[in-house]
Amino acid sequence: MRIIFTTLLIFSGLLSAGAQAPDSLNLMPRPQAVKLQTGKFVFTGRFAIGINGPGSPKLIAAANRFYLTLGKRTGVVFPQEYISGKENPADAQLTISYQKSINAAIGMDESYTLTVTPEKIALTAPTDIGAGRGLETLYQLVTPAGSGFYCPAVEINDVPRFKWRGLMIDVARHFIPFDVLKRNVDAMAIVKMNVLHLHLSDDEGFRVESKVYPKLQENGSNGSFYTQDQVKELVNYAHDRGIIIVPEFDLPGHCSSILAAYPFLASYPASYKPARRFNVDTIKNPSLGKIMQLINQTQTPTIDPTKETTYVFFDRFFKEMSGIFPDAYLHVGADENNGVAWKQNPQIAAFMKAKSMKTTDDLQAYFVNRMHGIAQKYNKRIIGWEETFNATVPQDVIIQKWKPAAPADTLVKSIVGHHNQVIVSAGYYLDLYFPAYIHYLTDPVPANLTATAADKGILGGEAAMWSELVDGGNEEIRVWPRTAAIAERFWSAAGVRDADDMYRRLWAVDFELNDRAVNEYGNYIKIPDRWVNDEDLNPAITLCNVYTQVKGYKRLMAALLSPGEVHAKTTLTTPLVGIADAVHTDSETGWYFRHWVATYLDKHDAASLAQIKSQLQRWQSNKARFDALAANSPYLQQIADLSDNLSNAAGIALQALNNEGIKDDQLKQLQQLEKPHHDVQLAIGQSLEALVTGKLKPEPAAYSMF
Amino acid sequence: MRIIFTTLLIFSGLLSAGAQAPDSLNLMPRPQAVKLQTGKFVFTGRFAIGINGPGSPKLIAAANRFYLTLGKRTGVVFPQEYISGKENPADAQLTISYQKSINAAIGMDESYTLTVTPEKIALTAPTDIGAGRGLETLYQLVTPAGSGFYCPAVEINDVPRFKWRGLMIDVARHFIPFDVLKRNVDAMAIVKMNVLHLHLSDDEGFRVESKVYPKLQENGSNGSFYTQDQVKELVNYAHDRGIIIVPEFDLPGHCSSILAAYPFLASYPASYKPARRFNVDTIKNPSLGKIMQLINQTQTPTIDPTKETTYVFFDRFFKEMSGIFPDAYLHVGADENNGVAWKQNPQIAAFMKAKSMKTTDDLQAYFVNRMHGIAQKYNKRIIGWEETFNATVPQDVIIQKWKPAAPADTLVKSIVGHHNQVIVSAGYYLDLYFPAYIHYLTDPVPANLTATAADKGILGGEAAMWSELVDGGNEEIRVWPRTAAIAERFWSAAGVRDADDMYRRLWAVDFELNDRAVNEYGNYIKIPDRWVNDEDLNPAITLCNVYTQVKGYKRLMAALLSPGEVHAKTTLTTPLVGIADAVHTDSETGWYFRHWVATYLDKHDAASLAQIKSQLQRWQSNKARFDALAANSPYLQQIADLSDNLSNAAGIALQALNNEGIKDDQLKQLQQLEKPHHDVQLAIGQSLEALVTGKLKPEPAAYSMF
Repeated sequence: MRIIFTTLLIFSGLLSAGAQAPDSLNLMPRPQAVKLQTGKFVFTGRFAIGINGPGSPKLIAAANRFYLTLGKRTGVVFPQEYISGKENPADAQLTISYQKSINAAIGMDESYTLTVTPEKIALTAPTDIGAGRGLETLYQLVTPAGSGFYCPAVEINDVPRFKWRGLMIDVARHFIPFDVLKRNVDAMAIVKMNVLHLHLSDDEGFRVESKVYPKLQENGSNGSFYTQDQVKELVNYAHDRGIIIVPEFDLPGHCSSILAAYPFLASYPASYKPARRFNVDTIKNPSLGKIMQLINQTQTPTIDPTKETTYVFFDRFFKEMSGIFPDAYLHVGADENNGVAWKQNPQIAAFMKAKSMKTTDDLQAYFVNRMHGIAQKYNKRIIGWEETFNATVPQDVIIQKWKPAAPADTLVKSIVGHHNQVIVSAGYYLDLYFPAYIHYLTDPVPANLTATAADKGILGGEAAMWSELVDGGNEEIRVWPRTAAIAERFWSAAGVRDADDMYRRLWAVDFELNDRAVNEYGNYIKIPDRWVNDEDLNPAITLCNVYTQVKGYKRLMAALLSPGEVHAKTTLTTPLVGIADAVHTDSETGWYFRHWVATYLDKHDAASLAQIKSQLQRWQSNKARFDALAANSPYLQQIADLSDNLSNAAGIALQALNNEGIKDDQLKQLQQLEKPHHDVQLAIGQSLEALVTGKLKPEPAAYSMF
Repeated sequence: MRIIFTTLLIFSGLLSAGAQAPDSLNLMPRPQAVKLQTGKFVFTGRFAIGINGPGSPKLIAAANRFYLTLGKRTGVVFPQEYISGKENPADAQLTISYQKSINAAIGMDESYTLTVTPEKIALTAPTDIGAGRGLETLYQLVTPAGSGFYCPAVEINDVPRFKWRGLMIDVARHFIPFDVLKRNVDAMAIVKMNVLHLHLSDDEGFRVESKVYPKLQENGSNGSFYTQDQVKELVNYAHDRGIIIVPEFDLPGHCSSILAAYPFLASYPASYKPARRFNVDTIKNPSLGKIMQLINQTQTPTIDPTKETTYVFFDRFFKEMSGIFPDAYLHVGADENNGVAWKQNPQIAAFMKAKSMKTTDDLQAYFVNRMHGIAQKYNKRIIGWEETFNATVPQDVIIQKWKPAAPADTLVKSIVGHHNQVIVSAGYYLDLYFPAYIHYLTDPVPANLTATAADKGILGGEAAMWSELVDGGNEEIRVWPRTAAIAERFWSAAGVRDADDMYRRLWAVDFELNDRAVNEYGNYIKIPDRWVNDEDLNPAITLCNVYTQVKGYKRLMAALLSPGEVHAKTTLTTPLVGIADAVHTDSETGWYFRHWVATYLDKHDAASLAQIKSQLQRWQSNKARFDALAANSPYLQQIADLSDNLSNAAGIALQALNNEGIKDDQLKQLQQLEKPHHDVQLAIGQSLEALVTGKLKPEPAAYSMF
């Protein structure tokens, strides 16, 4: 978002599009094969589209969206009023040809070929959905130059690496409004993702209307849920864009909201209600170790898997849900069940004994097998988180790998060896607030798998946005643009791994995502605008641009460690309106600044030096404007130290550039100023240190989770 | 939107809230009675809400929205997890008391009393909807100061002046997406409006799903329409906020999209399809006079009112629509039917003769009476545009006054004299691009009506947003914040007419509208961001901030005058992405600048002078940054003259301030630079001229429509 560079023209050169070498195309995800040719196709007032194929309402709709959006992008008035596929203009400059109209499904043919010459553009694909993917690539080729817009002449052959390219959104903890979901679907289509996985129930909320069991939403949602009409609309909307919807109902744990509605399902009697404090309601004065111990040892709300009434309930419920979620998958969660609630219930213990079950894991396997049987009745394949996997799990159950711990590879190998298929989310947890490159450089295929085993066993991957610290006001900032990098990991060849080139393209796709899909830029100014009471926004934005969240679960754990305080940071009723909620996880400003510092340290050129100094002076002088506004802004007063730190850090870097001061002292001071505060940290720390030491450290290969 | 003032802190003083005199409250609409008291109520972590009343899900929802939004605004972590109205905290600082839960309806009791003391806040109202209105007032009292937020102690008694306070959105010409509609409802609730009138059909499109006559959306919408599920959702959403929905199906003219689906309804055979060129498809090389003549004399698509099959059709159709639009009103349009299609059809002429009808107006009256009969079957009151009124119209038909011509008062008096009721839209046409104060100073009650007649006859008014030049990308910028000023006209006392104070409050409510409802700020940066390809946005925004659209229908008429050209400016397929589409109708920058100039001319103080000069220098130097970006921006190249003009105009004003140059020459040059171009004009022209002449002209009392 370039609005951030108030007067910072120094980066323009890096972004502007001149003559394009193959590497400089702004495609994301990068296609499998790109051959740049000579010349360019220029968009004029005679640009029209013809569609050849057996008839596909969704491709016709996609072509019309493309046409209207291209008109908005270029400002050119195109001649066609409506593209119907029936009355193709004889002189159509873009022809779209496809052989078959298909429904969105895992394993569908999404391939396409795109040929741009100076005279015309040909998009061909076996399926209408493949043609739709090709339209997205074509849009990313559109480039402004001089007085108009063009596409470089190019031949592209493309097909995804993985069948399953998903985004999971937790809509249970903080509810995510319906229009935000739809905008996420738009964004997913741009980066060619094909699965939206909705985590629809958890302790904190049950988020979809049931007509069979209406208390689920009445007692389990506090009024925030999707109606069945909305679900149908979302499914159609996603299908139109080649995306399926996978609903998740997390069982047998993570179910306070369900038990608030139907307590007879519970493993122990209690007064259930939707949780407010992320699973640790009951922990007093905890330490991290105690939390982990209690999480493993405390009785938590859990479905009773021994009663037949439980299965009657879920049979009817899944029957109903299968009617509104027509895609072939049903996610039943099955994660983080410590079994304590079962062990403590004598009837359940007796049941286990009668069935010769040795551990509660065996009982969970029994529960999952029963769910599997019910799902089969409604033609659904079951998905479960990795705890679902065991020796007796049916082979058609899909296992979603999520734990980042060391045995990940071993577990995946076991699962694949057992002939179950895997969706990999380990490495793609967006709530860790890791920069995009960390996820980007994580391959879904473990090193210990043969190519054949990986082909068969690894369905693909899913980015996962858990919503303890995310709500409708910042979900789009949290998920995008980072997820575009993950989408490339799932679509493009394994060898496409240049993180710096990824970032160059990420900023470009971010503009597209904002222009066509999400409201990330709008949300980015909304929170700071509140801080300043609609006064001058720039000092706050300048600050936000160079801070990012602390990495890992530090902020969440800090809240868990003080659950008794009114000001605990992350209960569901805590407003997510602070700087850690507002900032991006990847700092675009920081990335560009790093590039300028790298150039300067390499070449010691006066131009880079002047621009670096100019930026540092702006950061240094931001404090005065910030402080003036803070007089009337309670929140700016709270975070004035961050503003001071930026100003001081920039001052030290300026000193160093002027060869004043003592290096060791400056480095220590900088490191002090870089320390996290208010759950954020400076994103330009390494670059500033480099101006002192003369050496730019490489970006870390990994970050700690805690 | 203060982001516009890159470094322009000069206006802060005018906006920041210190100790509040009664006049400085930011309430809009202004309540009927406000008594400011001593002291303030401060929001702390113990702020909780209790609700006393017979039970109202919509008030509970409103209270929870208020609580969450207040949390986001203040950043304070409040103690209540969920406000249910059942478990009221003993120490609730805000108590909401109401006597009755009602359904949204015209004439409902919307009054409330709000008492804020330093200790507690009491909101009482006869109805839950009145209590909801009071919550909106309370929210507008929330003020930041020092390290926290407070409400001034105050006693407010409030009740609306008019029963009907509407916004009409034309969703037929350019379709307005569903999420945009919902955000408009949120905004309406903030300014206490209670009617959303949807113009659902016109020549260009039919915008709602019919299951009885599905070809209406299949052939009449090009895929852009609201599903019945969405209509139900919108109705519920609006009712929850005390707002009713009035559907309009424009008949018997303006109906190409209906005839595209069911041509048997037509008065003459033709190949109908949704129009693309705003009613003048058939006019070649026209002049303005010729257009008006042709509009009056050309056969245009019109329903045949003589066939019984027509009434069978609309009976079934209105029966279906009555099922999804439960509110008591049905708008049948009945505007701009020149009768030519009827005169030219011999069968229709014969029908008229047989029924002793002398004019096609008589036949239209017959048609409206038949519609009235059908509507009665489904318990709906008919509304029609003013052409509906004649001597035989039933007295329960509501007439919507729209023509701004001189006989307005006479016509309204006749209508009221006939005991029909009137909704006034004349004076509130947002597509004229008049500044807010023009609408604000127009009273719905004509001067020639007695108070008694007005009370009985004038139901209220409606702002009207016709969408020839508006789409989903800028509807929110076009409608808001101007409509807030109109909402005040409809709610507040007739004597509240200080336009300058209105503007002061309008900028404040605009912040609230953006924070809580519409995406106006986000859209405002979206179009310019496309121009600059996501590069530095500031030079383009600086330009947008000081330009507004040409007033009246000049732009639209220019397009009508060149309908044969590919580059005609306003067909439905023309992208609305230029500066005239991006800018606001009221320039906030211009308003503040005018105030500084006024102060300077009054006091000749050095401080004002310095600030004016500083602003002028920024405008003058904007050109360099603009031109640098224009190299890669096709659109900036197109509007470079606007940038040059701003720079030159600022330069002349600076000259004048430095007592250089010749006044007469400067004035002439300024007037030259102020001339409209690209459908926009400088919003700071008068202020700049005043710096030359030493005299600030008053704002015009009226603008020409053409």
